Amino acid sequence: MRTIDDTVLRRQVAAVFETWGMARDHIETTVHVMVETDLAGIDSHGVGMLPWYQKAKEEGRIDPKPEIRIEREAGALALIDAGQSLGHPPAVLAMRTAMDKARQVGAAAVAVRNSNHYGAAGYYSGMAAEEGLVGLSLTNAPTKQVAPMFGADAALGTNPIGFAAPAAANRPFALDMATSTVAFGKVSIARRAGKPIPEGWMVDRSGAPITDAPHGHDVGRLTPLGGTRELGGHKGYGLGAMVEILCATLSGCLGHETGHFFLAVDPSHLRGEGDFETDMDRLLDMLRATPPADPAQPVMVAGDPEYAAHAERKANGIPMTDTLFEELRDVCRRSGAPFLLERA
Amino acid sequence: MRTIDDTVLRRQVAAVFETWGMARDHIETTVHVMVETDLAGIDSHGVGMLPWYQKAKEEGRIDPKPEIRIEREAGALALIDAGQSLGHPPAVLAMRTAMDKARQVGAAAVAVRNSNHYGAAGYYSGMAAEEGLVGLSLTNAPTKQVAPMFGADAALGTNPIGFAAPAAANRPFALDMATSTVAFGKVSIARRAGKPIPEGWMVDRSGAPITDAPHGHDVGRLTPLGGTRELGGHKGYGLGAMVEILCATLSGCLGHETGHFFLAVDPSHLRGEGDFETDMDRLLDMLRATPPADPAQPVMVAGDPEYAAHAERKANGIPMTDTLFEELRDVCRRSGAPFLLERA
Repeated sequence: MRTIDDTVLRRQVAAVFETWGMARDHIETTVHVMVETDLAGIDSHGVGMLPWYQKAKEEGRIDPKPEIRIEREAGALALIDAGQSLGHPPAVLAMRTAMDKARQVGAAAVAVRNSNHYGAAGYYSGMAAEEGLVGLSLTNAPTKQVAPMFGADAALGTNPIGFAAPAAANRPFALDMATSTVAFGKVSIARRAGKPIPEGWMVDRSGAPITDAPHGHDVGRLTPLGGTRELGGHKGYGLGAMVEILCATLSGCLGHETGHFFLAVDPSHLRGEGDFETDMDRLLDMLRATPPADPAQPVMVAGDPEYAAHAERKANGIPMTDTLFEELRDVCRRSGAPFLLERA
Repeated sequence: MRTIDDTVLRRQVAAVFETWGMARDHIETTVHVMVETDLAGIDSHGVGMLPWYQKAKEEGRIDPKPEIRIEREAGALALIDAGQSLGHPPAVLAMRTAMDKARQVGAAAVAVRNSNHYGAAGYYSGMAAEEGLVGLSLTNAPTKQVAPMFGADAALGTNPIGFAAPAAANRPFALDMATSTVAFGKVSIARRAGKPIPEGWMVDRSGAPITDAPHGHDVGRLTPLGGTRELGGHKGYGLGAMVEILCATLSGCLGHETGHFFLAVDPSHLRGEGDFETDMDRLLDMLRATPPADPAQPVMVAGDPEYAAHAERKANGIPMTDTLFEELRDVCRRSGAPFLLERA
């Protein structure tokens, strides 16, 4: 394990995208989203995705020079064709479009089709909150890993929900969650560590729980949030299907492509200047003031762990496993980019 | 246990509201929402709420002759002051306003403040789907029953999510779920039946699971969907807080009143005629075609159990416990309404 300064990591990721011939503004946007995600401690959705992106680009599933265009537009709704772009540039354009429209008419939604992996859902909802708006960010994940309630096979991706809202004295409330009990990456981590996985994360074809991590990694299906029927697994399944509808069905890319959905709401159309943000402070302070069951573990609100990680990693660097370090060296070899992390 | 024909039940509920002096259109709306909810099998949110409503009206918490007005309005956003009305009439007005605006500009949101219990969240999202739109319906529940992750006390209500989307050959996808593992009513049912509750539904102040139903009923806190930290309880907590933000914080009634949030999206602004509905059929058919883990229990989609209950109860009547029957007799006594169920 080593630590890499975020400025070095930015240069490294940019160097790879430069070999792809990506447009300068697409590089800037994508590098920013990816490295901010690593800074926030969400290792599974930041630079750790670069080997996968490189492979998808080599296989022609990502177009490095996409035509991203607004295909349909109404006063509070738009559809963006991402032209097989890596997801970050069209997602930033979509959330910005939703925010611009929401400032005009109060609320707006934007759907994106023909996209790819866009990193962490919460980055885009966070864009809205940073500018005083409420934001929602959803994406489908075309890799089927999650079994419907009562299902033997996987039928949905981990279909995450990002939601953020600004406060005054507090950092924004910032939720970013898969609609499965856990993301697949947590099974991989347990497998590499030689540890069992908790009962409830994965099931086999008969619906029986899997606790052996290598077995789960090879043949398991993730459970929807809630896990069993008794503990509400039908709810996580329903939320995953809701995300699929808003991202894939609404945008017109069901079954083959990645789609996203963004919503922005401007509270200033409903409330007096600063009133919404002050009420957000009251809510967040009230939640944090809940007496803890264990005095050593205070109640948090969504976003707290990520803000803490960001401050720590900005100061001390981003931890990187030897495995990822070597995978990034390989990405540089294959793409022809200089490997800049050796001296870091 | 007896069964009551839905037309008789409608007359009974209307007779009670007439003694309140409620406006004719408010009575029609509220009776329709409540009895449709019983027909759909959601016993906890239909006529079973009438004793609670009667009590709240007697205590002055529900204004039977409210002034419901649109307080703020933009092209795709509005705020409705419900004037302490029972929740159903302002909620129907709000969803209809969101739908009308969505047809104009593609998408629209409406927040409601100073409201009361509005029944089942899914009724209002279903209104949108019945007319070809995608609908979202959220409400906060001011009674704090759900502990935040790591919390010893309850800090949020069961804050449900209703979401619906229309198909062509299929009935609409219709999700209606509390953001807690279960609603409090399930604990009451177990208590009355003398049965234990499953580990994971409730915790005590130390965070330890409660399985004794009477003990849970008296001192337990409901867990957020996911239950423990290991199985994603922080996600259910985050979803509950999201609902609180959109319903109470956005509308300006945090901490004391019930608020709602509605969103409508009109797919016809993005897709060709009928294309969205056809894609919905593909998705729903694909999900239902997932091989089941147990052949006796096929995979369903959200709404299936409610549509089946509706058909059965419309034909054969709505089952009613002796307890509720006697409670409704008492409501009639207190309100001065005729008791119409005796002969039913």
